[in-house]
Amino acid sequence: MSLKDSPYQVLCERFQRIASVEHALTLLGWDQAVMMPPGGAASRATAMADLGGMSHEMLLAEDMAKLLDEAEAQAGDLSPQERANLVEMRREWRDAACLPKQWVIDNTLATQRCEHAWREQRKNNDWSGLAENLKGVVQLARAQAQYRQEAMGRERFPTPYDALLSLYANGDSSALVGEVFTTLKAELPTLIDRIIERQNQQPSVSLQGPFDLDKQAQLGRKVTRMIGFDFEAGRLDVSAHPFSTGVPGDQRITTRYDADNLLEALLGTIHETGHASYEAGLPSDWRTQPAGRSRNMSIHESQSLFFEKQVALSPAFAHCLSPMLQTLFGDNVAFAPEALCRAMQRVEKGLIRTSADEATYPLHVVLRFEIERDLINGDIEVEDIPALWHQGMQAYLGLETQGNDRDGCMQDIHWPSGGFGYFPTYTLGAVNAAQLMHTLRQQVSDIDEQIQAGEFAQIRQWLGKHVWQRASFTDSQTLMREATGEGTHARFLIDHLQRRYMA
Amino acid sequence: MSLKDSPYQVLCERFQRIASVEHALTLLGWDQAVMMPPGGAASRATAMADLGGMSHEMLLAEDMAKLLDEAEAQAGDLSPQERANLVEMRREWRDAACLPKQWVIDNTLATQRCEHAWREQRKNNDWSGLAENLKGVVQLARAQAQYRQEAMGRERFPTPYDALLSLYANGDSSALVGEVFTTLKAELPTLIDRIIERQNQQPSVSLQGPFDLDKQAQLGRKVTRMIGFDFEAGRLDVSAHPFSTGVPGDQRITTRYDADNLLEALLGTIHETGHASYEAGLPSDWRTQPAGRSRNMSIHESQSLFFEKQVALSPAFAHCLSPMLQTLFGDNVAFAPEALCRAMQRVEKGLIRTSADEATYPLHVVLRFEIERDLINGDIEVEDIPALWHQGMQAYLGLETQGNDRDGCMQDIHWPSGGFGYFPTYTLGAVNAAQLMHTLRQQVSDIDEQIQAGEFAQIRQWLGKHVWQRASFTDSQTLMREATGEGTHARFLIDHLQRRYMA
Repeated sequence: MSLKDSPYQVLCERFQRIASVEHALTLLGWDQAVMMPPGGAASRATAMADLGGMSHEMLLAEDMAKLLDEAEAQAGDLSPQERANLVEMRREWRDAACLPKQWVIDNTLATQRCEHAWREQRKNNDWSGLAENLKGVVQLARAQAQYRQEAMGRERFPTPYDALLSLYANGDSSALVGEVFTTLKAELPTLIDRIIERQNQQPSVSLQGPFDLDKQAQLGRKVTRMIGFDFEAGRLDVSAHPFSTGVPGDQRITTRYDADNLLEALLGTIHETGHASYEAGLPSDWRTQPAGRSRNMSIHESQSLFFEKQVALSPAFAHCLSPMLQTLFGDNVAFAPEALCRAMQRVEKGLIRTSADEATYPLHVVLRFEIERDLINGDIEVEDIPALWHQGMQAYLGLETQGNDRDGCMQDIHWPSGGFGYFPTYTLGAVNAAQLMHTLRQQVSDIDEQIQAGEFAQIRQWLGKHVWQRASFTDSQTLMREATGEGTHARFLIDHLQRRYMA
Repeated sequence: MSLKDSPYQVLCERFQRIASVEHALTLLGWDQAVMMPPGGAASRATAMADLGGMSHEMLLAEDMAKLLDEAEAQAGDLSPQERANLVEMRREWRDAACLPKQWVIDNTLATQRCEHAWREQRKNNDWSGLAENLKGVVQLARAQAQYRQEAMGRERFPTPYDALLSLYANGDSSALVGEVFTTLKAELPTLIDRIIERQNQQPSVSLQGPFDLDKQAQLGRKVTRMIGFDFEAGRLDVSAHPFSTGVPGDQRITTRYDADNLLEALLGTIHETGHASYEAGLPSDWRTQPAGRSRNMSIHESQSLFFEKQVALSPAFAHCLSPMLQTLFGDNVAFAPEALCRAMQRVEKGLIRTSADEATYPLHVVLRFEIERDLINGDIEVEDIPALWHQGMQAYLGLETQGNDRDGCMQDIHWPSGGFGYFPTYTLGAVNAAQLMHTLRQQVSDIDEQIQAGEFAQIRQWLGKHVWQRASFTDSQTLMREATGEGTHARFLIDHLQRRYMA
């Protein structure tokens, strides 16, 4: 049997074809959000549903289980990377194969209905309306967790919640998350109070607009190019909800400009550039294969937060940015490096996760993690959420949400759309980012000088070697250990915040 | 057996899925030409090749022949439109199934190589270089014609050329084309000389630029909207080579602005709006089915040329356009309606088809038709082309191309890319457009007043009823007969030119 006809080779061809369908789905989705006129909505929805179905059918083709078995039996003939690819193939297949078709249909309907209604219910602070739909969504999520647990075994997924967490944070267990988050919730509330106290002793800075939108767009292009976005292999466009997507060789990020808020679009674009850099830096030979993909969302978010928080909120970056702002928008006292840095580093307790700063954000996530973990594991019910939310916000940030579910437990789309297990990746990503920067600083002495000079080649080279090129050839915690000497550890984020805000 | 499980219904579902893959291919192609950064080229090519292969495989699935046979056996249970759909399904299937796989591979390679080399060879006037590749392409085209003739029978395709013509002008036979073109080549040379003689007696008008590109874009949007392009169901963008494409509810046209040439982009955009109007006007219930598609390229081109030539070159339209130009670009003697109309209607003998006016264009096409017909039917060989081209240009337009193949037989991409049979549709479209306008004028007395007032609702309603809504429910000549009282007839184009230029 020649290599070309080996089961592994046949699988590679299958996954390459699936990747082509996913390529189309990615582009159709980007176009839908950025370019498509309203008239195209109906036929686009049909086309995407059909292509999604085809991709699913290709993955679950009748002979796939047999091919995987045969390839695994001959795995000794494969290179380590090929073996890793086979592991990922098996995982993708099992993730899809373990769910009954009826569950997929029921879940699509339930989450679509719940998410759709939530958009209005949130505006109206209508918790009981949301709860009614959410109960069905939670029931289906619990069923999903059970199917996945059965397929993978309790050793791999000791709790139902682990089975959902692994969809986004594959390799990061709920035990690890619990450990990291226990430290964060023990340390952060006090640290935040001290940061704010110290902050209040300094004059406050505000960046007064309006800031011309065209100039903001120029700034965005200039800064993203500087930190490494390649416009020959990507686009930066405007969309209502900023996002990052792409296909090999073609990363597409979007942003939204607000005349009164210069920093939001700028930092948002830098964040998306981090995501795009990871995707663009994946090994090009493996682009259509499962092992060639990004590792998980905890690692992905570590790349966006590395650029947004570790780099862009640093004093060195403020020094780099300051003359660019002055050239584009004219003189402004808030553009002085120290003032600019203070404006960017502002810490404030607030009800809304998406507008939280890097110090308070983890507590928003801890709260959500504790609730969704207990919910999926069957320890609490949907009815319990508002009270638990209120208690958590009081305990962690000293804020009230009683009767204000709109800005409390109704604020996020994740649960109405069935995305239980996603939240932890935001904060695992923040910890990983701090941990990677800590290691980088130990290995390269003049990181701040490089950032101040707008030089990112060495930083990108380091991330490329230790994160991007690793793709999915190894699990997330091994990746972190090999890059930084240990697995994800809360200490790195705490240390970073202390150094940045209290030193 | 319920209707849902009938072979016809199964076929409808198959073709709906194929349409979804084609939807993706259309959008990926548009994005490639308009949005994609260069870095995306390789993975886009792979994805499109894979999707093209999938669409082909779906069409040629093992059970398709059986399903078609069964559905045809039960065709009595179908509505007339469903029967028409089944006819088109069978045609699409046969068009693909009659070609051996090896032919498809060989042809793709040969045409890609020939087209690629042609781009350089044309610049270098290197006919012998082109001829070498072209021989292989012609050989494959002759083989294709034979396969198609065998599959359809000699009654349907009396000559090999008919089998290729039908790919673009399905329903229009080479006998019909020959008849139409015989009249044109008998009448046009004398008529053109008389038009030019008369034109030379009038003062010449030229539209002196530069014309601001942003204002040209504004004008383009305004005019296309006025003649009926719906920006809620389509886009107008810039691309290197203007084209028109789209998916249901989402028509995408492109143009290219030149500061020194106001009319080229404007008339080009109007032309593409005609194509887009046809696509947008197809019956929405049939969007994913073969019978719901546009009839053929002769009808398609009749819609683009209806708007570009019949409408936009009319004195009434010059009256409508004149104030718009003055508002945007300021006063200019050439913007006076009569002057503007003369500038737009300029007739001139030239070597290049794509820049030819409506009077000389048909002779460029007649020349190409005669050569490609004889080539495919085996009556001449590739070596004979340059001399025949030169003779034809002398006879029809009194121009020389000896030794200037670059501006002669090497100027078009069609033959190097294997597109034998396409050329006639340009002129069949021009005749059909004149014929439709003739009929419309007989039925609606104030067409010119409507055009002058920028009112297109009634014109579009008429085209919608007689052309767009007919989709592929009937053949092209029946469509023309039902719309105008007779099949495509050269007389209508001659009459139109005489009335416009000699009255």
